[in-house]
Amino acid sequence: MDNVLEDSAVKSDRYPSRCFDKPDVRPRLDPVAYGQAADGPLDQITLDQYEESGLLHFESLFAPSELDSWMNEISRLRASDDVKSTPEAIVEAQSRELRSIFAVHRSNELMRRLAAHPAIVDIVEQLLGGSVYIHQSRINYKSGFRGKEFYWHSDFETWHVEDGLPGMRTVSCSISLTPNTPHNGPLMLIPGSHHRFVSCVGQTPDNHYKHSLRRQQLGVPDEQSLTKLVNEFGLVAPTGPVGSVTFFDCNTMHGSSSNITPLPRSNIFIVYNSVDNKPVEPFCGLGPRPNFLAERASFTPASKLI
Amino acid sequence: MDNVLEDSAVKSDRYPSRCFDKPDVRPRLDPVAYGQAADGPLDQITLDQYEESGLLHFESLFAPSELDSWMNEISRLRASDDVKSTPEAIVEAQSRELRSIFAVHRSNELMRRLAAHPAIVDIVEQLLGGSVYIHQSRINYKSGFRGKEFYWHSDFETWHVEDGLPGMRTVSCSISLTPNTPHNGPLMLIPGSHHRFVSCVGQTPDNHYKHSLRRQQLGVPDEQSLTKLVNEFGLVAPTGPVGSVTFFDCNTMHGSSSNITPLPRSNIFIVYNSVDNKPVEPFCGLGPRPNFLAERASFTPASKLI
Repeated sequence: MDNVLEDSAVKSDRYPSRCFDKPDVRPRLDPVAYGQAADGPLDQITLDQYEESGLLHFESLFAPSELDSWMNEISRLRASDDVKSTPEAIVEAQSRELRSIFAVHRSNELMRRLAAHPAIVDIVEQLLGGSVYIHQSRINYKSGFRGKEFYWHSDFETWHVEDGLPGMRTVSCSISLTPNTPHNGPLMLIPGSHHRFVSCVGQTPDNHYKHSLRRQQLGVPDEQSLTKLVNEFGLVAPTGPVGSVTFFDCNTMHGSSSNITPLPRSNIFIVYNSVDNKPVEPFCGLGPRPNFLAERASFTPASKLI
Repeated sequence: MDNVLEDSAVKSDRYPSRCFDKPDVRPRLDPVAYGQAADGPLDQITLDQYEESGLLHFESLFAPSELDSWMNEISRLRASDDVKSTPEAIVEAQSRELRSIFAVHRSNELMRRLAAHPAIVDIVEQLLGGSVYIHQSRINYKSGFRGKEFYWHSDFETWHVEDGLPGMRTVSCSISLTPNTPHNGPLMLIPGSHHRFVSCVGQTPDNHYKHSLRRQQLGVPDEQSLTKLVNEFGLVAPTGPVGSVTFFDCNTMHGSSSNITPLPRSNIFIVYNSVDNKPVEPFCGLGPRPNFLAERASFTPASKLI
């Protein structure tokens, strides 16, 4: 396969992917935990844990009344036909069920305030060493009985190649709005995998996102690299009640199995990027994806959204 | 939908399924644990546990050398092109990978001796209160990365409707030949569900087994009944090392999620039926399935196979 990009562009790309005809595992070139214990709510032990594993899990960060209001809101949105017909809504190809709604922090008042919640933002600002804005937000609905699997991926690979995020200074925050059990297709992560960058094979076609949001075909790590990562680092699948929160580094490899149980799995997913890591031109050489998938128009600090 | 069977046949069927146009949950009409503590290796507490939950799990019943020999054998069989071309082999529709080999206790000397192993047969004879023969045996291979889910089902529903097993006096034994973790699509069971019979909707077409072994479309319990069962009884997914064994009642509802981890999941699955519960004409009114799926030609007691 020919390189998609000019050789010089590949050489200046610190995390090249979808450029070569063989997969490759490289070391991470960026810090993980950017802040210190003095900068925020996390102590040094917890920061070191994040540095090592690329993730943190908390069973409870919110008041029950807050959780109730968010659960009601995501149920209301799910039932809305208007929502389903927006470009921000991703609908299952076969069942026509709503799978995700993107950019909810822009379209929805409650979600905007959730995304600016100090219990989250203070932690993220500490992890990333300063002010952050929202790169992406979404509500994910995984049905019972027919919940689809999400194959392994590093979010950073896509956000770098397709959205132009230059470095690894981005944290994802997943807030469970249903109980996460070992059985209902919970988020699985490879703790420590964020220390490596798995360069994937394949070229990125124009408008790739229109297909990839339903079924990922590019930016898919190869089986040999995944096997090595799991052998070295193992697997974790944090479980917990409604309101439990998982923060994970943008380059932590993760995925989830199908869900045949009657127990649905829904969460709110917010991605915070450092204001010092704003997107440049996408590294795949194509135009950027729409703003509802990857913010590049407005970098208001998350703490100012309230 | 019209009834497939004559009304009189439906009336005399103690567990009618695929006969009505609505699903229905009925009580079990048969005992669960047929034997007593004096009859075998299990004490009364363990028998009571089986009676209540419909399953028993053991981490270790075999010598390491036995496990090694079985692991080698199933690897050898998997690599054999000859095996793949037999009617007993079930091959994945898309990937052409081997998914199961049936009737291995007849085609393979090592598997025959495994199926007659006193560590298993003594327990099963105690659970079923007397002599047992092998209704079905198979090796299951669930790949890493692409392992498919198996949707919820009661084995008894199929064995009754399609194979003519009259009553619930049958035990399945699953022997893990890879580690079972919470992550690699382990067997999930609804403990206690064996106390109910979920009558399913649909008619059984001729040669249904040719499709159903790849993808189950009939004998599928409805979502409302499954939700009720899980709400009442919960879910378990026994995990354990190579050699761990799960015995479960033929009517215990079970299934498994997909497996995207690099860790494959393989097991040997042997179904023992009481010699007092031999098959009659299938209750769907069609001819019986082939003998490699449901024994009806030879009822040699499992204990005599060594």
